[in-house]
Amino acid sequence: MRFSSETSSDGVREQFFTLGEIPGVLWSPEGAAGTRPLVLMGHGGGQHKKAPGVAVRARRFVAECGFAVVAVDVPGHGDRPKDEEYDRITTENRARAAAGEDLAPLIAGFQALVARQTVPEWRAVPDAVQRLEYVGAGPVGYWGVSLGCGLGVPFVAAEPRVRAAVLGLGGSAASAEAAARITVPVEFLVQWDDERVPRDQGLALFDALGSAEKTLHANPGGHGEIPAFELDSTLRFFARHLG
Amino acid sequence: MRFSSETSSDGVREQFFTLGEIPGVLWSPEGAAGTRPLVLMGHGGGQHKKAPGVAVRARRFVAECGFAVVAVDVPGHGDRPKDEEYDRITTENRARAAAGEDLAPLIAGFQALVARQTVPEWRAVPDAVQRLEYVGAGPVGYWGVSLGCGLGVPFVAAEPRVRAAVLGLGGSAASAEAAARITVPVEFLVQWDDERVPRDQGLALFDALGSAEKTLHANPGGHGEIPAFELDSTLRFFARHLG
Repeated sequence: MRFSSETSSDGVREQFFTLGEIPGVLWSPEGAAGTRPLVLMGHGGGQHKKAPGVAVRARRFVAECGFAVVAVDVPGHGDRPKDEEYDRITTENRARAAAGEDLAPLIAGFQALVARQTVPEWRAVPDAVQRLEYVGAGPVGYWGVSLGCGLGVPFVAAEPRVRAAVLGLGGSAASAEAAARITVPVEFLVQWDDERVPRDQGLALFDALGSAEKTLHANPGGHGEIPAFELDSTLRFFARHLG
Repeated sequence: MRFSSETSSDGVREQFFTLGEIPGVLWSPEGAAGTRPLVLMGHGGGQHKKAPGVAVRARRFVAECGFAVVAVDVPGHGDRPKDEEYDRITTENRARAAAGEDLAPLIAGFQALVARQTVPEWRAVPDAVQRLEYVGAGPVGYWGVSLGCGLGVPFVAAEPRVRAAVLGLGGSAASAEAAARITVPVEFLVQWDDERVPRDQGLALFDALGSAEKTLHANPGGHGEIPAFELDSTLRFFARHLG
């Protein structure tokens, strides 16, 4: 793990790093020492490790809960090189969707393929980050919606250090089998008028989660329109389960 | 409005009253003066104005938000006389359900009948209570699940003083038409394994709400098993919209 730059603002330290080939960013309380909860955040499709939706949430987790937060670029996103195979499949899927094919299973197949790469990549992230004295081996949380849900469900299912997860904007076609293996508390977000994830598939993914404690929050609006008050709820959810 | 008794504990004053023929209870901050938000609570079927689920919530609304809270007995419940017509219909419905008839529309029909009586009764409650100096004409909220949802939906639709409502454990058969006339923010509770309200009917009632801001919270478990953390969420919801 090599750090390349560091800045601080409003009490939050932001450090860019690479872990092998993977570029990432770590947020932590400025000047703090000792073990703390770590939240790994997965970004959305076409976004990157420091997309506004990721960074705004990360800074609040640090400032209000004292957590450390880490995000890395998904293959083919952000500062990572283009991936020819993924690009080829994406182009193919667009053509198939344009020709009338149902988009949801195409996205599901693609996310399952990418997850075979990201699950081991993401499992290496807490291995490295938790060696830092100001992070330590505390409880781990996961936050990810949309692509971050499609890749997050198999990650959370595979990683026993994860104690709680916020997921959503994803459908059962992508990951019902892995969802059934998740047993930690989950807060699951559905957008009631999601133009990308059919409502019944989002509800089916919530239904498939194996967790005894899982809570579905559904709100009106499209895929990108999660209301601001859900971030307050996410903060309380993580504080309850990781704090 | 005639008060019959008054006690206080933990900073919460509890006053029993009758309004015409209707017995009720009013909770307010002990020794407080001036206008404050008022939450009207509707109890569940077979329960009453001071059932534990009502009283526990009421005391927290008062202690943590400084609200006043009022609940009255539904006809045929608590300290009200038995109602021969309602009893006859209930007995009939039980026999029809035992004979294999679908229970949901029977309950819906019964609740619609009772609501014709309770909507005007409940609208008279803030008329009276808001005349008290320590309540005043502040914003009004409504909380009610199960029977409290079946009767609450037509009440909230009819009463313009209500600015926010927590509803749930109710189905679309009972009140979809009135739900469409509700425009205030609603937090709507669904129990994912509700043995009394089919899941699709609960989701359909949420869908039918006319409110631009509405949020569905669904949790695993049966009809009576709303998790404790939902009360924390309810408090924040009312604080946000009435406070």
